Amino acid sequence: MPSEIPLYDIVIIGAGPVGLLLSVSLSRWGYKVRHIDNRPVPTATGRADGIQPRSLEILRNMGLKRKIMAYDPARVFEVAFWDPAPQGKIVRTGTWASCPDFLDARYPFTALLHQGHIERVLIDDLAKNGTRVLRPWTITRFETNHTNPAYPVEVDLKNLDSNVTETVRAKYLFSGEGARSFVREQLGVQIRHKDPISHVWGVMDGVVRTNFPDIKMKCTIHSDHGSIMVIPREDNMVRLYIQIASSTDKDFSARKTATVEEVQAAAKSIFQPYYCEWDRVEWYSVYPIGQGIADKYTLDHRVFMGGDVCHTHSPKAGQGMNTAFHDAINFAWKMHLVESGFASRDILGTYEVERKFIAETLLNFDNQYAALFSKRPPSASEVDSAHKGDDKAESETKNDFVEMFKANCEFTAGFGVAYNGNIFNHSADHPFQHELFIKDSPKLRPGRIMPPSNVTRVVDANVVHLENEIPFNGAFRLFVFAGLGQSPKKGGHQALVDLAEGLTAPGSFYARFGSEDLQRDNHHDSNNPHSRFFSLALTLAAKRPEIEISDLPALFQDYSARIYADDKRDIRVLDAKAAAHAKVGLTGDEGAVVVIRPDGHVGVAVRLVPGKGTVEALEGYFKGFTNESTDTQSSSGLGGGAEHVKAQL
Amino acid sequence: MPSEIPLYDIVIIGAGPVGLLLSVSLSRWGYKVRHIDNRPVPTATGRADGIQPRSLEILRNMGLKRKIMAYDPARVFEVAFWDPAPQGKIVRTGTWASCPDFLDARYPFTALLHQGHIERVLIDDLAKNGTRVLRPWTITRFETNHTNPAYPVEVDLKNLDSNVTETVRAKYLFSGEGARSFVREQLGVQIRHKDPISHVWGVMDGVVRTNFPDIKMKCTIHSDHGSIMVIPREDNMVRLYIQIASSTDKDFSARKTATVEEVQAAAKSIFQPYYCEWDRVEWYSVYPIGQGIADKYTLDHRVFMGGDVCHTHSPKAGQGMNTAFHDAINFAWKMHLVESGFASRDILGTYEVERKFIAETLLNFDNQYAALFSKRPPSASEVDSAHKGDDKAESETKNDFVEMFKANCEFTAGFGVAYNGNIFNHSADHPFQHELFIKDSPKLRPGRIMPPSNVTRVVDANVVHLENEIPFNGAFRLFVFAGLGQSPKKGGHQALVDLAEGLTAPGSFYARFGSEDLQRDNHHDSNNPHSRFFSLALTLAAKRPEIEISDLPALFQDYSARIYADDKRDIRVLDAKAAAHAKVGLTGDEGAVVVIRPDGHVGVAVRLVPGKGTVEALEGYFKGFTNESTDTQSSSGLGGGAEHVKAQL
Repeated sequence: MPSEIPLYDIVIIGAGPVGLLLSVSLSRWGYKVRHIDNRPVPTATGRADGIQPRSLEILRNMGLKRKIMAYDPARVFEVAFWDPAPQGKIVRTGTWASCPDFLDARYPFTALLHQGHIERVLIDDLAKNGTRVLRPWTITRFETNHTNPAYPVEVDLKNLDSNVTETVRAKYLFSGEGARSFVREQLGVQIRHKDPISHVWGVMDGVVRTNFPDIKMKCTIHSDHGSIMVIPREDNMVRLYIQIASSTDKDFSARKTATVEEVQAAAKSIFQPYYCEWDRVEWYSVYPIGQGIADKYTLDHRVFMGGDVCHTHSPKAGQGMNTAFHDAINFAWKMHLVESGFASRDILGTYEVERKFIAETLLNFDNQYAALFSKRPPSASEVDSAHKGDDKAESETKNDFVEMFKANCEFTAGFGVAYNGNIFNHSADHPFQHELFIKDSPKLRPGRIMPPSNVTRVVDANVVHLENEIPFNGAFRLFVFAGLGQSPKKGGHQALVDLAEGLTAPGSFYARFGSEDLQRDNHHDSNNPHSRFFSLALTLAAKRPEIEISDLPALFQDYSARIYADDKRDIRVLDAKAAAHAKVGLTGDEGAVVVIRPDGHVGVAVRLVPGKGTVEALEGYFKGFTNESTDTQSSSGLGGGAEHVKAQL
Repeated sequence: MPSEIPLYDIVIIGAGPVGLLLSVSLSRWGYKVRHIDNRPVPTATGRADGIQPRSLEILRNMGLKRKIMAYDPARVFEVAFWDPAPQGKIVRTGTWASCPDFLDARYPFTALLHQGHIERVLIDDLAKNGTRVLRPWTITRFETNHTNPAYPVEVDLKNLDSNVTETVRAKYLFSGEGARSFVREQLGVQIRHKDPISHVWGVMDGVVRTNFPDIKMKCTIHSDHGSIMVIPREDNMVRLYIQIASSTDKDFSARKTATVEEVQAAAKSIFQPYYCEWDRVEWYSVYPIGQGIADKYTLDHRVFMGGDVCHTHSPKAGQGMNTAFHDAINFAWKMHLVESGFASRDILGTYEVERKFIAETLLNFDNQYAALFSKRPPSASEVDSAHKGDDKAESETKNDFVEMFKANCEFTAGFGVAYNGNIFNHSADHPFQHELFIKDSPKLRPGRIMPPSNVTRVVDANVVHLENEIPFNGAFRLFVFAGLGQSPKKGGHQALVDLAEGLTAPGSFYARFGSEDLQRDNHHDSNNPHSRFFSLALTLAAKRPEIEISDLPALFQDYSARIYADDKRDIRVLDAKAAAHAKVGLTGDEGAVVVIRPDGHVGVAVRLVPGKGTVEALEGYFKGFTNESTDTQSSSGLGGGAEHVKAQL
């Protein structure tokens, strides 16, 4: 009897980074998640990965960064390169910032710590929202069928301890199983290897004592005795990666291995003339790896995959966990907007398009960069001009190496995640065009993130990160920058009055989705006073004491805790009259409404002008993927069927 | 039989802020602490106090700030003043920064949260170091006698649940009992009231809904219907302070009280024309309070008192917990240096001298300020020039109000803690003088803290807070600023070579206290590789890649993780060649050795010059209070009797 089968919004297989971050997001938004993992306990040791600058921003936006930083991860600000020197020794040939100044990052470093700590933070967050990872459970079968059309995916699960089996149904199945994926195999999806070369890596964590001066830095060491990568870790630990075999070797075997003692002896030779003794070894492993990408991330828009299931990298790139995080949040908000009735089901197709493109770019790039670098080491002046960033470089002779270096930094820091134009990321190919769309702004590029800035929150005078003020809550973010020509005083901001009128007009894209949220008590809800699909933040080019919230249109008064004074100096734009405006490219009287997707990427930016144009342009953008209202969606996920918007909107 | 009596280094009575912070410090340093509190459980609700900017720095330096901020306290950046308006209404007359720009604070805000959270963080830290607060225990008797000269204080304790009694002996007894102190009463120490007026206050915590625009700010509201102070709190809460009675009232009674409903009704009247409804009340209390200071903080240098036992303030000042924190750390390091054999017992006298002076200054100041302010409200231009700080103000007409405002900000932010000259804080009256002492520097004033700065740690390229790099570890901190004339390259830094030679010469103040620490494995000890009494940090005016640690004298190589490149720009000294140097007033070729007391206050600053002079000057300063070596002290607290310094020092 179908009614006996447990029903879930989603079944998630695997509690690594991708599975956990997806589970955290959906659990926070009220979805019913069945989450399993075939390991009896979370990662106990090893397997660490770096958390890159952009991932730290994502975790900050989700309120998770502080809990992760509480474990005091090592922070990598620079990478040192060591090369062979006479008599079998090594010498430092250079150091480079891992996130140079030309990248405007809140956290210009990579944080390194044991994956188990990160998992623990995510598992604790899940618990607060009522989701528990069940272990050790595995998936044994799944299919999409029409036995229950609202829950089309049928999944068989099995407990590996008790051998108890269970069949459940869900709206979605998501595999975050890692490189060896049952789901991917069953779907017959192939992994395509971008780099034909595969490698066997040894990795060792522990505490060493050494006089090697860069033991607290990330280092790439090439010596006559072999190569090592050094990664600092929390608690005085260090991680060494040693390439044990490569498919380019004559006698290559993917099963080649090495003992702890062999690797330590190799390390000792490579570190000459420095000594290197081990206080203790915490973890050691040898594994073969190739760089590859899955052909498809989904076949039917019901069963999806992400993380290592879809792309494997060499550990050198340090991208595994970061790419997984992006996969998770990219899928989370899209599933949410479909299941809550906001957006049409078509948008789910953008998950594979966006994420597979990034994985491909990353791998192509990694290979090209390695090839370029192996030809010759860069000169000091090349490194220097690469560090200086965009503005300087343009005026100089174009240099492949410098360009590649900069692009590489952007990628490894996570700011190279730049989605192509599609229904969310406005471009010249978008079906809807409007004269007020801001095009070709180097500061507001659809598909990329908005530059960070500090502003003063009017209601409590707190200095805050504007870009973090609206959390990852599944809503589109409308960042309104009033422009230098709008006064906070009554009568001084017609463009804002007209914007508020347009947004609250019955039938507007904003008002249509007010729905049942307006029946809630929203007095203490700073982010979603009107609708769970939109969060708004207004930044005025004025000093805080000049702004009286009661002088602003009523729409903005409902967002009283999301009104900001653009009155803080910024060392990057010291001469700007309004630094936050300047950082998004707005230096004139005219402001803008910047539409940010729920994951923090720019969707579109619209000039803020008096009259109806600004709202018209926004309306056209949102019409591209939204439903008429939430009640047109029969499979509405949260609270089912929507109310009509309130009279006041 | 005396041998049956349990022996402790210290008995601490009371687990409020002063008792807990003292207990945390001493437990971390290995002391045996008997800590009791007469309450059955920690503070469950209410009693919050603001943590001022300087206290946040102290907590940061102890590694406790992040854990406290994890509770998401409200942050007060500005204070709003509301005054009566026609028709019984109120109007905002101004807002002021609570920590204006002229104060160079890391954290320019007051953090507000429930005292129980703060206690919890401290109690957790205690547990890590093996100390537990025993509850509900009280003290019933104590005396100092010679039955056991090493443990001269005899204390009777009683469990309030079981009535079990116990007699213990200790080297010290510390009372952090709060305003009603058994110890103070037994000692016959009087409280002297600086302000003859006493008040009855009502205080209410809860969640309100209101259209009062500054409900998230700290506000002082005067209206025709009475006065209220508004303090924002964590979790959307607000605290209201209402003065219920004053000894200047005709019918004053210290027992006057008011119900929750009466106070809410009063608040409603005062807030007109704004509405104010209560979602819930979390805590409510009424208490009489007067501003007073104890005549003595100790009588015999064995029984000490601190916190509210010694000084009570009106809650308006928001200083209670902050003053308690300072009391605790001031006593902690002095007791530590005596008990570990480093310093002579005389130094304990400076606890009362330093801390009582600050309490008196604070109270005098609070009264004067209130008097000045009650005469007339300040003009906008006065507020403006006060905000701008030192440089501007000097060129303008001297204005009492502006001066007072600035001094007030300094005090309420905690930067007014400026100890007078004594054996630790060098001045013209100090018994030892040397031509190399830096005098009259506005940036390095003995008794005050050193300005904060960002530098790059050479060993791992991390950008760090220089002033926080050495934690509160009971050691004196020697911050060496090499000066713009010293190169990091070999042969380029004679002054550093001479400094290292002088410090490591047999019999130097630095070498004498190497003691048994040199027998430890110090490979992973960044702060105390040579001696637990000294921590050293070297800042070079160079870019990080220019510094090769192996080129520096061996002394500094042992502190490899405490070597810094002064290569970060600072918005306060944009034109400086070396910002951290400039912030301590060093803009020339010559550097300095800045001696910082264990609590972060400047002891003395000495010019760094080639030759023996710099070490001579330091030697003279330390001779003022140190023993010959730790083994001259029979009652050595930690590990008893010391080893002789190692050959290498």
